[in-house]
Amino acid sequence: MRLLKVQSLDQSVETILQTMESLNLKRIENIPIDKALGKILAEDIIARENIPAFRRSTMDGYAVQSGSTNGATQTIPAILELVEEIEMGKQPRKKINASETSEIFTGGMLPEGADAVVPVENTEKIGGNFVSIYSPVTYLEHVVDIGEDTNQGEVYFRKGTIITPAVVAGTVSLGYLKVDAYAPLTARVLSTGDEILPPDSIIPPGMTRDVNSYSISSLCQDLGIKVIERKLLPDVKKIIRVELEKTDVDLIIISGSSSKGTKDFVPAIIEQEFNPGMLFHGIAIKPGKPTGFGTDGKKMILGLPGHPVSAVAVFLAVFAPAFRHYYGIQDSKKIPCSISQSMPATPGRTLIQLVSLEETVTGWVCHPIFGASGNLSTLAKADGYFVIDQHEEGVVKEQNVNVTLFSL
Amino acid sequence: MRLLKVQSLDQSVETILQTMESLNLKRIENIPIDKALGKILAEDIIARENIPAFRRSTMDGYAVQSGSTNGATQTIPAILELVEEIEMGKQPRKKINASETSEIFTGGMLPEGADAVVPVENTEKIGGNFVSIYSPVTYLEHVVDIGEDTNQGEVYFRKGTIITPAVVAGTVSLGYLKVDAYAPLTARVLSTGDEILPPDSIIPPGMTRDVNSYSISSLCQDLGIKVIERKLLPDVKKIIRVELEKTDVDLIIISGSSSKGTKDFVPAIIEQEFNPGMLFHGIAIKPGKPTGFGTDGKKMILGLPGHPVSAVAVFLAVFAPAFRHYYGIQDSKKIPCSISQSMPATPGRTLIQLVSLEETVTGWVCHPIFGASGNLSTLAKADGYFVIDQHEEGVVKEQNVNVTLFSL
Repeated sequence: MRLLKVQSLDQSVETILQTMESLNLKRIENIPIDKALGKILAEDIIARENIPAFRRSTMDGYAVQSGSTNGATQTIPAILELVEEIEMGKQPRKKINASETSEIFTGGMLPEGADAVVPVENTEKIGGNFVSIYSPVTYLEHVVDIGEDTNQGEVYFRKGTIITPAVVAGTVSLGYLKVDAYAPLTARVLSTGDEILPPDSIIPPGMTRDVNSYSISSLCQDLGIKVIERKLLPDVKKIIRVELEKTDVDLIIISGSSSKGTKDFVPAIIEQEFNPGMLFHGIAIKPGKPTGFGTDGKKMILGLPGHPVSAVAVFLAVFAPAFRHYYGIQDSKKIPCSISQSMPATPGRTLIQLVSLEETVTGWVCHPIFGASGNLSTLAKADGYFVIDQHEEGVVKEQNVNVTLFSL
Repeated sequence: MRLLKVQSLDQSVETILQTMESLNLKRIENIPIDKALGKILAEDIIARENIPAFRRSTMDGYAVQSGSTNGATQTIPAILELVEEIEMGKQPRKKINASETSEIFTGGMLPEGADAVVPVENTEKIGGNFVSIYSPVTYLEHVVDIGEDTNQGEVYFRKGTIITPAVVAGTVSLGYLKVDAYAPLTARVLSTGDEILPPDSIIPPGMTRDVNSYSISSLCQDLGIKVIERKLLPDVKKIIRVELEKTDVDLIIISGSSSKGTKDFVPAIIEQEFNPGMLFHGIAIKPGKPTGFGTDGKKMILGLPGHPVSAVAVFLAVFAPAFRHYYGIQDSKKIPCSISQSMPATPGRTLIQLVSLEETVTGWVCHPIFGASGNLSTLAKADGYFVIDQHEEGVVKEQNVNVTLFSL
């Protein structure tokens, strides 16, 4: 096997990104907007028209020429002739002049000649044909002008935007009921190790539960990746090779069997059986060093550490950023937190530090959670993590760190 | 119709919460953990055992009594007799004493007598039966002790926790493959208004697109509510009454036709046909005043404003908090941001202010987005919102406000 250098976190993200680009994994599907929630936009969403296309009232009241209400008061109202009751959803039939008004409802289209709306509470009908106006309105008051909301050609949402309810609302408001979104990547998620048993087994001493196939499948699902199979494999080279050779997915994630133990044959299979083979083996991060990545030119193979917390940390801090970058998704918004204790840096290694968050009167405080990387309870207690770069000098108590949350 | 007072934001949330409680809408289903992502835990997840149940190695190396490595150096190593190679997943067969050692791999179970592990890189095999130890280890070094991760009875996750990948990992690590989660609420989402057309229609002047049925359905979906039908209705009292009378869902949301226009018969139907009927009509918030809420004793009926931005704002700021509270879900984590301009308060009204976020060297800055409440582009530009309580005096430029994000 070629000697592969241990890479930095940034180099590893870059290698995965470049591999995704060279494998050309983007597939676009045109789907109904109401099935698109959580997917990634594969096109810009652009306004085809001015919104509104007409002057629209924001109140129930009377459409007027604003000048004709100048100086109107409760005692000396402006008296205007009522020429029309504009029906909702209908185009006004009559133009108005300075001595005229039309009744209008919220959302209604102003008649030609009108430039403002007097709210109904500042008016009174006199007989059937006249209206008293008790207070003046200014030009465009209680009116949304043509194109005031949106100009034709304006970009509402960029390619790479995650489709949230706000994106659904904006897209539908422009008249689109179908959008181009990226089809989900497909993945197989494998756990290996003779000491690993299905989680609901009786676990004899020396054995441990398969957590990774479940946690990594959930993380895939969270990113919108479709897991077509989740499987626990024995440490048998031939069985693992058959699994790694499958070509019906974009991504195989295998955890365990990638430490430097004697049974470390996953990298050997990737290097010997596949071309180009392994692209890196080892990342200068803590936890997560024994991470490998390779390709057979058709799919990616990501080898995660066997330790459950390390596997989750590597997925979040290495794979997810490359995935987001590939699809043009904005970085996760981070919460700035004051750290509750000083922490040394790890020379030459980027530290991924799990933290729990606490809301205090002065803002968010985060508490580092320590424990061996196999300790799942650290993950159970954590709200998120932050990163100390290998070139940084550690953090001191009450310094601000930027925490990426596991969820809102 | 009874005269219903305009309520405060807090009172409205409380009314919805109390209604959910009196209607007893919680239903529990026992589901596989790998189908539970995004759902809400309906039980505490508790450790049934100590984790680990045995002393476990965190390195590949040699299990020893730490005392027997005291003073070991490269030049004067400790020489120990190799008594066993402990296979992964197997219980060690032999106890060790101070002059003995067993080979062990990461994750392996320490043999009786051992209390530490010397990493393989600090050792050398001599012949087949002896090992040189080149550096000392301390008590429990490179070992996870019994119960160090988790003590039996420890609560990993509380009822009301949203099931994220970290929750899946923690739950599986405790040996649970099924969990009690809340079954989704069911909803019908209705848009009304004669001026409202399906979004992909040609929109004549005076008419507008149905945005609300799509945006509100997506918001429901985001909260885990199952929308069984989304429908656009004409302003015909009989048709609307038939829809509101349906009893196959927990929640009917109807938007439009709830302003004080002449066609305002939704509250009238709820008040006249149903018992107890309307519970509030009008909330002292901006936007979103014309919001109504009622019940027929079997389901909730939420009447949202017709303005698309108001409808979204009310759902997020009024309904979602009640929903979260009812299921015991933690509040959304908010991002503290410096506001880029001063804003006055609205006396007697709680303001829901949309903002866009910008990351600067000194932290997050938020920019208020203004526009009539019908302007969908305001929603398209917004990353989230913050609230100015009716009793607050507005905010001044560079003051910190807590922004609730639409998404990470």
